[in-house]
Amino acid sequence: MAIHTGERPHTGGAGSKLPGVMPALRKVAPQAGFALQEIPLPQIGATDILIRVQMAGICGTDLHIYEWDRWAQHRVHPPITVGHEFMGTVAALGAEVEGFTIDERVSAEGHIACGKCALCRTGEAHICNELRVIGVDRDGAFAHYIAMPQQNVWKLAATIPDQYAAVFDPLGNAVHSVMTAGVSGKTVLITGAGAIGLMAINVARAAGAVSVFAVDVRPEKLELAKRLGADEAFIAADPSWIEKLRSRTDGVGPDVLLEMSGSAAAIEQGLTALRNGGHAALLGLPPEKIRLDVAESIIFKGVTLYGIHGRRMFETWYQMQRMVKNRRIDLKPIITHVLPLESFDEAFGLLKAGTAAKIILDLR
Amino acid sequence: MAIHTGERPHTGGAGSKLPGVMPALRKVAPQAGFALQEIPLPQIGATDILIRVQMAGICGTDLHIYEWDRWAQHRVHPPITVGHEFMGTVAALGAEVEGFTIDERVSAEGHIACGKCALCRTGEAHICNELRVIGVDRDGAFAHYIAMPQQNVWKLAATIPDQYAAVFDPLGNAVHSVMTAGVSGKTVLITGAGAIGLMAINVARAAGAVSVFAVDVRPEKLELAKRLGADEAFIAADPSWIEKLRSRTDGVGPDVLLEMSGSAAAIEQGLTALRNGGHAALLGLPPEKIRLDVAESIIFKGVTLYGIHGRRMFETWYQMQRMVKNRRIDLKPIITHVLPLESFDEAFGLLKAGTAAKIILDLR
Amino acid sequence: MAIHTGERPHTGGAGSKLPGVMPALRKVAPQAGFALQEIPLPQIGATDILIRVQMAGICGTDLHIYEWDRWAQHRVHPPITVGHEFMGTVAALGAEVEGFTIDERVSAEGHIACGKCALCRTGEAHICNELRVIGVDRDGAFAHYIAMPQQNVWKLAATIPDQYAAVFDPLGNAVHSVMTAGVSGKTVLITGAGAIGLMAINVARAAGAVSVFAVDVRPEKLELAKRLGADEAFIAADPSWIEKLRSRTDGVGPDVLLEMSGSAAAIEQGLTALRNGGHAALLGLPPEKIRLDVAESIIFKGVTLYGIHGRRMFETWYQMQRMVKNRRIDLKPIITHVLPLESFDEAFGLLKAGTAAKIILDLR
Amino acid sequence: MAIHTGERPHTGGAGSKLPGVMPALRKVAPQAGFALQEIPLPQIGATDILIRVQMAGICGTDLHIYEWDRWAQHRVHPPITVGHEFMGTVAALGAEVEGFTIDERVSAEGHIACGKCALCRTGEAHICNELRVIGVDRDGAFAHYIAMPQQNVWKLAATIPDQYAAVFDPLGNAVHSVMTAGVSGKTVLITGAGAIGLMAINVARAAGAVSVFAVDVRPEKLELAKRLGADEAFIAADPSWIEKLRSRTDGVGPDVLLEMSGSAAAIEQGLTALRNGGHAALLGLPPEKIRLDVAESIIFKGVTLYGIHGRRMFETWYQMQRMVKNRRIDLKPIITHVLPLESFDEAFGLLKAGTAAKIILDLR
Repeated sequence: MAIHTGERPHTGGAGSKLPGVMPALRKVAPQAGFALQEIPLPQIGATDILIRVQMAGICGTDLHIYEWDRWAQHRVHPPITVGHEFMGTVAALGAEVEGFTIDERVSAEGHIACGKCALCRTGEAHICNELRVIGVDRDGAFAHYIAMPQQNVWKLAATIPDQYAAVFDPLGNAVHSVMTAGVSGKTVLITGAGAIGLMAINVARAAGAVSVFAVDVRPEKLELAKRLGADEAFIAADPSWIEKLRSRTDGVGPDVLLEMSGSAAAIEQGLTALRNGGHAALLGLPPEKIRLDVAESIIFKGVTLYGIHGRRMFETWYQMQRMVKNRRIDLKPIITHVLPLESFDEAFGLLKAGTAAKIILDLR
Repeated sequence: MAIHTGERPHTGGAGSKLPGVMPALRKVAPQAGFALQEIPLPQIGATDILIRVQMAGICGTDLHIYEWDRWAQHRVHPPITVGHEFMGTVAALGAEVEGFTIDERVSAEGHIACGKCALCRTGEAHICNELRVIGVDRDGAFAHYIAMPQQNVWKLAATIPDQYAAVFDPLGNAVHSVMTAGVSGKTVLITGAGAIGLMAINVARAAGAVSVFAVDVRPEKLELAKRLGADEAFIAADPSWIEKLRSRTDGVGPDVLLEMSGSAAAIEQGLTALRNGGHAALLGLPPEKIRLDVAESIIFKGVTLYGIHGRRMFETWYQMQRMVKNRRIDLKPIITHVLPLESFDEAFGLLKAGTAAKIILDLR
Repeated sequence: MAIHTGERPHTGGAGSKLPGVMPALRKVAPQAGFALQEIPLPQIGATDILIRVQMAGICGTDLHIYEWDRWAQHRVHPPITVGHEFMGTVAALGAEVEGFTIDERVSAEGHIACGKCALCRTGEAHICNELRVIGVDRDGAFAHYIAMPQQNVWKLAATIPDQYAAVFDPLGNAVHSVMTAGVSGKTVLITGAGAIGLMAINVARAAGAVSVFAVDVRPEKLELAKRLGADEAFIAADPSWIEKLRSRTDGVGPDVLLEMSGSAAAIEQGLTALRNGGHAALLGLPPEKIRLDVAESIIFKGVTLYGIHGRRMFETWYQMQRMVKNRRIDLKPIITHVLPLESFDEAFGLLKAGTAAKIILDLR
Repeated sequence: MAIHTGERPHTGGAGSKLPGVMPALRKVAPQAGFALQEIPLPQIGATDILIRVQMAGICGTDLHIYEWDRWAQHRVHPPITVGHEFMGTVAALGAEVEGFTIDERVSAEGHIACGKCALCRTGEAHICNELRVIGVDRDGAFAHYIAMPQQNVWKLAATIPDQYAAVFDPLGNAVHSVMTAGVSGKTVLITGAGAIGLMAINVARAAGAVSVFAVDVRPEKLELAKRLGADEAFIAADPSWIEKLRSRTDGVGPDVLLEMSGSAAAIEQGLTALRNGGHAALLGLPPEKIRLDVAESIIFKGVTLYGIHGRRMFETWYQMQRMVKNRRIDLKPIITHVLPLESFDEAFGLLKAGTAAKIILDLR
């Protein structure tokens, strides 16, 4: 049932003649950097879909793998095709796939769950213990073709722009954080104005926050935060930012904290700023253990804290699609660069320099 | 409107002749130990109720104050009457008090909230920023009389035993923890089998947990934990207790963690044991900052974590009263000693030695 | 402690000289119509506040009392001053009142709860069994002065316009409905575009609905609905409106129904339109029993249905104030008329004719 | 991939030799009664499992089909094998089935959802619009073999008795009702003490209700209700039962209503009995439209009402299995008869007479 390099799957239409090989951005050895290689097309099983990647977003995780930091060395096993944020068109269908057609536009959930455990069977597949992530644990999306299980493939409404569809993965992180914490009618603080933090500002506004505030260590992010809907953006170096925020939130602090930076200082300060009884969603990953004043920051304040990983399958996808389709979300200020796949070194350079927010690779 | 030593409040009945002075257990100087003194009766304002204390429970917090540890030195300002868990009878009523009668049995919420802030006005008075705690911030309950604001006084149903009513404060901590985490139909781990942890075992069972497990560092607590309803109790020194617990919970770990110890190791191990997507209520107060692997213990697992302080006013009280009235809760194994007020040194010795669970002082 | 006609309460400032009598709009006899009379100022108790009414909104309930329909005949006992939506300034304070000052701007919750029952003590005072409503069960707000218990008086932020503050009562109904049903990231249908229905459109948008749809029997309301933020407004007479709505909501129907009309047909059609698993908030009061297909409309669909009465004390008030202060809500299109108290007959005529949405009486 | 009568599926073990035909209880014509016929074994597709039925429960729905009432005439299309509550062992596996082995014990969810709609993909498959029910819309379980999609098949823990596993379908209805309404720490009224109502009494107790009350029209059910854990059971004909219940629930009425009868009178009285702010789960299906005082019974009381259909896939199944495995549930008093398949006419006679609670057909 599987296709091999050069084979034609039986379901391919006239226009879907598949090439024998394809370009793919790969981590080929345990060291910094990526290589653009020609490799065979991925095989698909009976329930898989082969997707022709059109646009793909670069994530901070990709930069970690590019730079081959400690986390990457521990988690990633070369050789592997990297990349996990993408959209494209259906290029071939496994024999048992139903409900998809060749050439239709799709994105995909990049976390592949086991589908059989109690978590998967009770709506919590996003925290399945057997999650395998494309571009990290198996071949990813920075290539002309990617194979995905049919249940992970997401049909795109016609009105969703390609560039937005390409970043449904991080947008889904932001939507999952915002919807889990609950922002409707509330004041919200977002710590960390990287790509997901910036998206969260915009999503929080769309989801009904009455005020949104952001804080970041980089001055150049503050203006961007405001353009995306922040009522005010603070520079983390300002020792009185918590005090200023408090005066903007009835003297008590924001109702909700969305922690998108993974910085120990941001977690600590964010919880200090949060009002008693507030809700905090933690998405940013601290690279190591951090010291927390659990009594003062969590217990006495009666805080509710949510660990946020991935996106709900597929509640978050429906929410996200609905928001984008109805134009409640504006990602244009966040997508700062669109580059061809070949310019990957330039792209990672921009990301590292912090001058880019979200970079999209164009593989069309 | 206030009564002074020796005065008779106008509402006093025939049998309520008040003495001029009363015995009270006091922290008189910034050093270890308490003194039993004769002092004037507390004054009551127009909306206060004077209560003749009948029985009072000793809390771990009282031991901290007795021993004058760092926390106590920082928080408590002698001279002050200590104690905050109690029940008694109404002895006198302020001029504006309505709905209470002399001699009726009452307990009281010992956290006095401002009543005016947004938290107080939206059902979250238990985390009001202006909370003042009897026996810590103002005169407490280890005395023959205590003055309480009428809104803090709780009428006791006739079928509630005195000894149970005397410990509604810590029982309320346990009930608040259990009801916030939500245990109905779930498997529950309780870390720390002190008085509140033991109560939580029993409350979790009453609230519909399908299995309850406990862990403690002290072997002598394990049998008590089982008598109160734990399906199994583990000794923390057993390096495989998490593994054993996992095998008892479908291989995935418990759905709920109730952290009652304040120990950094218990928090860390409890979160490790908890299943992905589990809920954790933290009540035990770590004495200092702790190191947490936020990425592994909270974020990747998609854990929801609740900081628990005090008891909800007065939702917890209604829940607690309903459970006790309907005999869903059995505190007998926990109340290990009943002693006269004069034996306070013996009581604190027993507590410190760890041979007592809950000690009640009898002031009748 | 109470003030009587012509008396000066001790707390009155220099500028607060109170008149002996005041004009008040009254139901004086069990028949249609109101009378504008001079009556003594209301007395205040020790914990009451006397408010100089500045602006007051006319509600559909007032029209029922004006017309003396069956409901009014059964519920209202003349003579009584009518009106319950208002804002004004503090004119006098009872002896025990704290935290208010003469001349400060206030509105008030018109439902006076007992404050002592389990509902009142657990954050559900809005459904207390002993609720007494101003302008219905006791003297109301269509008068120069009204007495209110201090706990019902709401301090107005400086940036809240008088006209908005005058209609916090119905706006609170809308906010309570929207926040109870939960609209963040959802599609919403509102049945009934009277004043509260129109407010709900605007509030739903502010609270994060991705799409809002309205339906009403009156063509003249549809344009107003769109100006307030409805994506589309349907005329109830159109036999295919449910089908059209379904095609706008992914073929399944809206996620949320806010029923603001009290019409049996609207309830039935609204529940038919609602998607499986949807949430419905019912605020509109059917004047009599209605026939419901409980199996098809509620059970098979797995619908969750909320009965909505009044506004939460005071969670709704905080939410509402936050939304208005932060300019998330625009009531201008709803407030169609501002008239002097003397023009009350004209006002009720406009309301009855359906040519007005919300009419405000100006008593300054 | 499908097996036909007399064929051997490739996965069949030595002991799984399948017969060519099997006995099945069938509705063969549009009239009252069933026929026991020999028919070919059901075919299975690539993702289906063939189950050898061991025990099957008779449901009220089966009685409707047996008697061929109006509902049955409208819904059921003969010829069809009836029955939907069952357990058995795996007899054959479709080619694509993974994770099951021949002869393992299983039960199954009898509602077959489409798996592709938004409801199915967001954890609400139990209210999928395309649900097809075994024994109603396709061949059912009163036969020696039944074919089920693999995702509907539920592996049974070894400690779950056959008789309990045979009624996981109605037990799931009860668990879904109880868990949706939320009974932990609450007082509960159950209207209707048929098989599911009786199960709900026991489940509510296990799930942490502090008190459970039941009401039924049949005096013979009251004793059974008490044996299953009801604190008190009322006869519906007693005009003061609501008053008596109120006096048992602090004068305010129960916190939760579980409506299991489908009777208009029970729905009306149950909502009248419910306290303000209470939660009601409606499972019983009224055979036609009913008249409801929506204003008094739902709106003024601030009631939350849940329509309950089927069981959550598969959250309810996990909850149910956990409760049974841990012996929190005792169904023995409910399973009043175990009869061979051939005695089906006797079984339906007993059910109709109301002398049986739950009858199990033994097909071993």
